[in-house]
Amino acid sequence: MQVAIVLYPGFTSLDVLGPYEVLGRLPDTEVVFVAEKPGLVVNDLKSLSIEAVATPADVTTPDVVLVGGGPGQVEQMSNDALLDWLRTADRTSRWTTAVCTGTFLLAAAGVLEGRRATTHWAGLDQLAGFGAIPSKQRVVVDGHYATAAGVSAGIDMALTLGGLIAGDDVAQTVQLIIEYAPEPPYAAGSLDSAPADVVERARRVLAS
Amino acid sequence: MQVAIVLYPGFTSLDVLGPYEVLGRLPDTEVVFVAEKPGLVVNDLKSLSIEAVATPADVTTPDVVLVGGGPGQVEQMSNDALLDWLRTADRTSRWTTAVCTGTFLLAAAGVLEGRRATTHWAGLDQLAGFGAIPSKQRVVVDGHYATAAGVSAGIDMALTLGGLIAGDDVAQTVQLIIEYAPEPPYAAGSLDSAPADVVERARRVLAS
Repeated sequence: MQVAIVLYPGFTSLDVLGPYEVLGRLPDTEVVFVAEKPGLVVNDLKSLSIEAVATPADVTTPDVVLVGGGPGQVEQMSNDALLDWLRTADRTSRWTTAVCTGTFLLAAAGVLEGRRATTHWAGLDQLAGFGAIPSKQRVVVDGHYATAAGVSAGIDMALTLGGLIAGDDVAQTVQLIIEYAPEPPYAAGSLDSAPADVVERARRVLAS
Repeated sequence: MQVAIVLYPGFTSLDVLGPYEVLGRLPDTEVVFVAEKPGLVVNDLKSLSIEAVATPADVTTPDVVLVGGGPGQVEQMSNDALLDWLRTADRTSRWTTAVCTGTFLLAAAGVLEGRRATTHWAGLDQLAGFGAIPSKQRVVVDGHYATAAGVSAGIDMALTLGGLIAGDDVAQTVQLIIEYAPEPPYAAGSLDSAPADVVERARRVLAS
């Protein structure tokens, strides 16, 4: 199985590297990081660079397509080469997936038309404008599309996918290997659970 | 605040990049990835390379030291230059931290003598042999040392640290920005919760 993970300048690293840690551990799986130009791609915080080893054009029929979000996603909305590739790869992919605002790139490519999908809470209201049906679920599977809410939700999505691809026992084994029994020290991780002043502050940070 | 994250060949990426996503979002924080040689460092799955921008020698007094685990940790146990650096950096650090089997590197450096600490479930029994007091908690804070259980536990550790460093409201804001309201599709993430056959299978995978 080949997994193609899309990188672009200004990506949020956990969006893609959370799922990577799960999908990369499935049996007989090759992961390829792709970007417009092979070489280092710098993230949103500008302190992490990951190597892309191929361009999308080099990877024509991946079994799984994964596109993450981050501030850089906005610029990619007009990257026709990327959107064309997403559309084409989607025709033969077993799973086409997105995390966080990466969902907007799938939507812009036109593949989420009439599909239930999710994205980062701060963008969920805008998803309908791109033809998808917004869902407040943390992980949404509709047809061969899987989408995840913000950033860390990609881990849950990847475990869900892992089960669908390789079976529950394999996905559970990966979960145990990465000791994913989360115990967040606060209950502020969703719009519903976070205190109002935290929501306000997060909106300010995201807008800055 | 300067955070130094140690990379070495064969690191497990989520060990360091989970905490990175949290610590890198704290106000006025610079993160520096360090490795023996600057340049690309390849992970345990051999499909991800991250750029180290400095050597430990370049970063003499980080406020936070973070060392992750992974199969490559075993080789680093005899890397005297790294262990020396950990010992020296620890003298002036505000927090010295480890995730997963990274805890063994702190222990080998001698800084966890008599300290409560944790590591990946598969290694917890061996920790006492290195002078630390093993704890089954997911995140352990003892003095200015913070350690996390396996791989994904670093996210919980970093949020805990974020609260101690920058206050609960800031840490909660980061939690909401990364939408960390986990919903694992299975309950197999810990030794206590995983089915026996999953534990067996995980032990086989880790030993292979």
